[in-house]
Amino acid sequence: MISLEQRAALDDLYARYSACLDQARFDEWPDFFTEKCWYRVVPRENFDRGLPLSTMAAESRGMLKDRVYSIQNTLYHQPYYQRHIVSGLFVREVTGEGIHTQANYAVFRTKQNEITEVFNVGRTLDIVVEDGGRLKFREKVCVFDSELIPNSMIYPI
Amino acid sequence: MISLEQRAALDDLYARYSACLDQARFDEWPDFFTEKCWYRVVPRENFDRGLPLSTMAAESRGMLKDRVYSIQNTLYHQPYYQRHIVSGLFVREVTGEGIHTQANYAVFRTKQNEITEVFNVGRTLDIVVEDGGRLKFREKVCVFDSELIPNSMIYPI
Amino acid sequence: MISLEQRAALDDLYARYSACLDQARFDEWPDFFTEKCWYRVVPRENFDRGLPLSTMAAESRGMLKDRVYSIQNTLYHQPYYQRHIVSGLFVREVTGEGIHTQANYAVFRTKQNEITEVFNVGRTLDIVVEDGGRLKFREKVCVFDSELIPNSMIYPI
Repeated sequence: MISLEQRAALDDLYARYSACLDQARFDEWPDFFTEKCWYRVVPRENFDRGLPLSTMAAESRGMLKDRVYSIQNTLYHQPYYQRHIVSGLFVREVTGEGIHTQANYAVFRTKQNEITEVFNVGRTLDIVVEDGGRLKFREKVCVFDSELIPNSMIYPI
Repeated sequence: MISLEQRAALDDLYARYSACLDQARFDEWPDFFTEKCWYRVVPRENFDRGLPLSTMAAESRGMLKDRVYSIQNTLYHQPYYQRHIVSGLFVREVTGEGIHTQANYAVFRTKQNEITEVFNVGRTLDIVVEDGGRLKFREKVCVFDSELIPNSMIYPI
Repeated sequence: MISLEQRAALDDLYARYSACLDQARFDEWPDFFTEKCWYRVVPRENFDRGLPLSTMAAESRGMLKDRVYSIQNTLYHQPYYQRHIVSGLFVREVTGEGIHTQANYAVFRTKQNEITEVFNVGRTLDIVVEDGGRLKFREKVCVFDSELIPNSMIYPI
């Protein structure tokens, strides 16, 4: 459905997205999305039943920037490290909207002086488009299996 | 040993296989195998010693379908979510039998109202062939490191 | 920055490196490096502050062989299985030194009669060169998030 070059570009997008978040370069995170976008982190149970409740949600790059501002300035939290492992990327379909992709992910969390733990696992259902010469997410829906989120989720997935 | 197009097709096969199992679309699982096949989930200790004992085994697509029937109808169990992360796919060799591949995997399990846990990690030793226009597993041997399997293994790996 | 063929060769290098370590074929491990090399496993906290302290370090293939000798002959330890999951490989830059890559990794550890645990997660910052017809690591720096390493780290990452 897509060329080998496009496939390599997709791999690269996902790799850089993970690296950005895991190195806590949150200022760069909104640039992985188009101006008008749809970002959502949602429990699998809600997603499967079509329920709208999300753990995190944003409808524009501006809202993503607000989230970053909160993380850096207003949300009181104990910092932790995140580490994304992503696998099983494939193209569901290509439509006028963009390239519809799916992948599995596992995010590990490490808090100061604590053992690394499995924080959040699930799949991501995305729509990728070219925007200003690079691939960006028009839509990113992270559907997580994890039923109990150890404490609150502060950073994006 | 294989072309870039074949390599991409292999990546796709593994991605869709994981997605099928993790979304619990078990009815579609046997179609990832050839009619006559060899599916086996075996502890590393047994595998390394050449012992035949397997945790799960099937020699045909029919036996795989039986397994699915059991899961859906007769095996009494508490449902859980699975999430596959696969990496390090490479081609061991290409023979008349097909493309011999190897990859590492980690499967996470999430039970209702419980924390996500590392369920089963190991490597998969497969033989992939083209069958009816798509790639399928003629052989899939999942050799797992995990010594203690938390409760019993119900779903395929 | 690199061709699709080179990208495939990189994927292959990482896959075989993981397979070598996870199957405990430690004798083959030094051959993944150039004669003069730089191998380092370092906590993220130290790395970010530019501190030189490493959990493991070697400056030549000879030193890597010494490490293997220690593992096999002098280091008293309870054996354990390792399983590498690597994702998000991308090229940072290509210089006269080689191809500068980065990837995320998670290593799982399984001890006899114990549950598999998340042992070490982080990213690897490498420089890859062609040496004697195959790709090798001139530099490999594993920067791990994990603050507490459950017991001591014996095998390479």
